Amino acid sequence: MKKNYKMVVSYDGSRYKGWQRLKDQDLTVQGKLQEVLDKLEGAFVDVTGSGRTDAGVHALSQVANFHLSADMTPKEIHEYLNRYLPDDIAVISVEEASERFHARFNALNKTYRYTIRTSPILDVFKRKYEYQYVDHELDLEKMRKAADYLTGTHDFMSFCGNNHIKKSTERTLYSIDITRDNDLVIIDFTGNGFLQNMVRILTGTLIEVGAGLRDADSMPELLDMKKRAEAGFMAPAKGLTLLKVVYPEES
Amino acid sequence: MKKNYKMVVSYDGSRYKGWQRLKDQDLTVQGKLQEVLDKLEGAFVDVTGSGRTDAGVHALSQVANFHLSADMTPKEIHEYLNRYLPDDIAVISVEEASERFHARFNALNKTYRYTIRTSPILDVFKRKYEYQYVDHELDLEKMRKAADYLTGTHDFMSFCGNNHIKKSTERTLYSIDITRDNDLVIIDFTGNGFLQNMVRILTGTLIEVGAGLRDADSMPELLDMKKRAEAGFMAPAKGLTLLKVVYPEES
Repeated sequence: MKKNYKMVVSYDGSRYKGWQRLKDQDLTVQGKLQEVLDKLEGAFVDVTGSGRTDAGVHALSQVANFHLSADMTPKEIHEYLNRYLPDDIAVISVEEASERFHARFNALNKTYRYTIRTSPILDVFKRKYEYQYVDHELDLEKMRKAADYLTGTHDFMSFCGNNHIKKSTERTLYSIDITRDNDLVIIDFTGNGFLQNMVRILTGTLIEVGAGLRDADSMPELLDMKKRAEAGFMAPAKGLTLLKVVYPEES
Repeated sequence: MKKNYKMVVSYDGSRYKGWQRLKDQDLTVQGKLQEVLDKLEGAFVDVTGSGRTDAGVHALSQVANFHLSADMTPKEIHEYLNRYLPDDIAVISVEEASERFHARFNALNKTYRYTIRTSPILDVFKRKYEYQYVDHELDLEKMRKAADYLTGTHDFMSFCGNNHIKKSTERTLYSIDITRDNDLVIIDFTGNGFLQNMVRILTGTLIEVGAGLRDADSMPELLDMKKRAEAGFMAPAKGLTLLKVVYPEES
């Protein structure tokens, strides 16, 4: 009888082609986790993440589930994983989950953080987790005004990196919080789901608004256009981190 | 007429053979800085650091000085350096210094920080700047007692990685501060100078005391022995960061 496990995993995405295995030879976080779990189980183990993250994107707390028949405690599975995983992937916790728990279908909301360094001098210790933007000063009031238009339930087609998407591009953004911390501008996006590249295109667009290159009041029109080319640049992957995934109490 | 400049520089030492150029082909922080300044000056520029850091050791604020005849403002030199340096070296400031300023001879004291992670789960974002120690729990009271014996002016030959040293091995440690911050144990060493590998051997010895493998009261005897082999293991370079270098007001 297989048991279902929920794990929380942290990763430095710098050298990965993202969370999900596309081609077998791709180096992915999911692929690395499966590799170790396959060895533990002695058979193929399917690891289901709460969602994909793009190549180069990091996670503080990604959530995934997987089924095992191996007779091991969650603590033993946890230790086994961290023993064999490379040091840029760390499993934070492993616990047994209900049979119905599904990391993607059950996710209520997710929070992504985009970190922008606005000073010319890099922090060498955080350089792989921040995007440096010094072309213009950023006006946070303008960015917050644009963020207000973007919050809520909208068709985010203009902010989708996949032009050939067939499924619905409607998503709900519960909040976009923009704060300054010394030389950093930090944008936290919480929503019920995110399209491919969506957070990075939203960030690029908000940066353009903050830089005075685009009007905050143009956001409703931009949403209506449903054209990726009309939105801002795609901010680099390295500034983006999946902060957390929230599930209902019972799962 | 050449001018003398003082610079503060931060680096992730992970891929460097330390601060100082030993062989020409070595990748060093000093070598990288000289390379860029040579290009700026169109001639060889000697960069003098406050002291060497070992291979793999980091710096938040290393200080160095150099002489240039190039007709540029400190701001222009600063920008030039950061434009051409790799992203694991960042110059924090450049200012004109008095003709007599010498980064090594004038340094009053230096502070090094050693960071130990005591939990089994790595912080993937800081893994290159922390040393994970989980073999035993660390008793900070014991470590602080040992640190008290080590503070002050002593012959630190037992804590010197260079057995063939000809010069004096007497140094003054002004303070060793040991603090806990959640899963981290942080040790800050402030002294008037440090022998080769000294902070790392002090750290390894303090860890052994904290782990109960060595008696805090054995420190005076250990100092008296003047034998490297009697001291503790050398803690890995990656956990060590040069935090700051202090100079007299006028320099």
